[in-house]
Amino acid sequence: MVRLGVVGLGSRGKGWIAGVLVNMENVTITALCDVYMDRVDDCANIVTNKHPDTEILKTTDYRELIDADCVDAVLCTAAWEAHVPVSIYSMRAGKPVGCEVGGAYSVEDCWDLVRTYEETGTKFMFLENCCYGRRELMILNMVERGFFGKVVHCDGGYHHDLREEISFGKENRHYRLRNYLSRNCENYPTHELGPIAKILNINHGNRMVSLTSTASLSAGLSEYIKNKKPDDEELKNANFAQGDMITTVIKCAHGETITLQLDTTLPRYYTRDFTVHGTRALYEERTDSIFEDGKHNHDDWSWTKNFGNAKEYAKEYEHPIWKDYLENGLIGGHGGMDGLVMHAFIDSLENDKPCPIDVYDAAAWMSVTALSSISVSLGGAPVEVPDFTRGQWLLR
Amino acid sequence: MVRLGVVGLGSRGKGWIAGVLVNMENVTITALCDVYMDRVDDCANIVTNKHPDTEILKTTDYRELIDADCVDAVLCTAAWEAHVPVSIYSMRAGKPVGCEVGGAYSVEDCWDLVRTYEETGTKFMFLENCCYGRRELMILNMVERGFFGKVVHCDGGYHHDLREEISFGKENRHYRLRNYLSRNCENYPTHELGPIAKILNINHGNRMVSLTSTASLSAGLSEYIKNKKPDDEELKNANFAQGDMITTVIKCAHGETITLQLDTTLPRYYTRDFTVHGTRALYEERTDSIFEDGKHNHDDWSWTKNFGNAKEYAKEYEHPIWKDYLENGLIGGHGGMDGLVMHAFIDSLENDKPCPIDVYDAAAWMSVTALSSISVSLGGAPVEVPDFTRGQWLLR
Repeated sequence: MVRLGVVGLGSRGKGWIAGVLVNMENVTITALCDVYMDRVDDCANIVTNKHPDTEILKTTDYRELIDADCVDAVLCTAAWEAHVPVSIYSMRAGKPVGCEVGGAYSVEDCWDLVRTYEETGTKFMFLENCCYGRRELMILNMVERGFFGKVVHCDGGYHHDLREEISFGKENRHYRLRNYLSRNCENYPTHELGPIAKILNINHGNRMVSLTSTASLSAGLSEYIKNKKPDDEELKNANFAQGDMITTVIKCAHGETITLQLDTTLPRYYTRDFTVHGTRALYEERTDSIFEDGKHNHDDWSWTKNFGNAKEYAKEYEHPIWKDYLENGLIGGHGGMDGLVMHAFIDSLENDKPCPIDVYDAAAWMSVTALSSISVSLGGAPVEVPDFTRGQWLLR
Repeated sequence: MVRLGVVGLGSRGKGWIAGVLVNMENVTITALCDVYMDRVDDCANIVTNKHPDTEILKTTDYRELIDADCVDAVLCTAAWEAHVPVSIYSMRAGKPVGCEVGGAYSVEDCWDLVRTYEETGTKFMFLENCCYGRRELMILNMVERGFFGKVVHCDGGYHHDLREEISFGKENRHYRLRNYLSRNCENYPTHELGPIAKILNINHGNRMVSLTSTASLSAGLSEYIKNKKPDDEELKNANFAQGDMITTVIKCAHGETITLQLDTTLPRYYTRDFTVHGTRALYEERTDSIFEDGKHNHDDWSWTKNFGNAKEYAKEYEHPIWKDYLENGLIGGHGGMDGLVMHAFIDSLENDKPCPIDVYDAAAWMSVTALSSISVSLGGAPVEVPDFTRGQWLLR
């Protein structure tokens, strides 16, 4: 039984608790922390409603939670700005930490994560749930089995209309708001980059070498606020630093390219646009379709006929993780991804396994945000992606 | 009646003649030129089979064709490398020229086109047929009527599996082959960039300011040749300079961004991926769908339900050019676009109108190829897009 302390109890932390953690047999929540005490009380009630005998440490200071004897491991679901400080404090305290996703504010922050891990040896896992997406894992499986030939290019995006969430207002100010007001970068790359990095063996024989990032103007949020919240004195005249569309192009050591688009302040449907393009096949999440060389004909392809055909490949290529999961029943949010990533974290603690998404993955993926900010500020200039493994990617 | 000389009689030139020109009442073909005389004879037969009384000058020298008294205007459908020399010679000879699409080999070539036009005053039209695509024009109409709000970002691509065409072999060597062997750039940007440039008012109050371009490794053609032409001594060990995927990101004067992808040597279905993203709506050619703010809900959108919905907007927003065209019957290839762009060129000659796609459009759009080559060679460094209008874009 892992005794877990949770830092950060906004909607994501609360969702983890209510949707996943209280249902896990090998986890008990023993401490809760947020800067708002009402959130702590709210989440404590969720836990004790399900497990009446649980004693819970409640605090607004994450250091107190991490240092508490009742806490074996820490889950950081706080605002983006807290991810690195909480993770570092936790590793220094010898408490394994599972960290929610987001981008880094500086490259040095990424190095500090790596240094702290290397100095302390405390487990760190980056909880990128999309690495456990059903299609992401199926495509990874197909890539590993050679279905795509040589993978040459991948696309991904965070195409998610967050205008309402960002501008909800003072009464429930979201951490995204302050970021969108003051930063201009690919602020949320890992949902799409994580699965792509696994496919391209980043940090395991391959690495990201350089990137460029280009920001569009910012118009979506201002227009939205003008229409939806015309009386909000603080927001109606706000200038958002964040461009509506950030396009990032990454070059890898073996010549593969990756494009990422951050697209969160214009009207649209949701997609992570996960796209894998190899010498023998193409997969597109947007249309959930696979184009297979030799089988499909590019003159005879249409969305009415072929879109959605990826499911036909599931019988042969469903990833073993998902096969097990479907047999044993899904738990958790986001279509099962949450349960799987948390299971992997807890499993690595209980059975002393390496974390499947480790500190080097986190540093590389999170650094894209900081590097994107630099490239945008330099008019799209290419910037080097650090090698956080210090050459070990050639050996791992 | 415009007496037209055609330079370049490969499959595109022949297609123009057989599919469009011999059916136009106000055009007669009076001269034909290609470096291969059998192509000239072949095309001459096509013309005389339809119009037995036509006298045709046949030559392998484009200068002879352009200088001939029987030629009022020139159509250049030759290999990419000939577009600029033929167009310049034609303008200097006082013969209006319609030039097929392709990219430029140098920025200076683009300036030479502009200088020659300005010095001679001879009409020049860039025959970008995709500017006359049905959806492209409908979306342009919608943008002009405010449907999209402020347009912030556009995507486009030339996603066209050309492996067979490029590697067909010595016996019918395509001009693409030599380009793919020796260059590495966005070699064919205008099918998608043209319609986007019209939407973003490039050269008319807006301009492209800078771009970055990143090339992936080259693997698709080599693998294709290894499988399909294992005995081709010349090609089986060829090293292709051209990366399989070239991603170009363009920044415009008012902050709009454009992405272009050249994707011609991997297996896939065809799309130009024409995508227009504004503060009120999104159009995606890939799924032929429109997401309209307020009408559509991003939590309730699916490809099974919504893809293909663009046709529902045609009743209100079909472009007047296409309304007329549908009523009067389509002619020409590529779904009618060819007939429309040729009609526009001939109309500008007969009625002394300005060419709707002029030398400044051609220079700006074609320059993307040359600039992309520079950026790729500099590791994705941003390069400036010249202002070929010399400031007139602020006034036009």
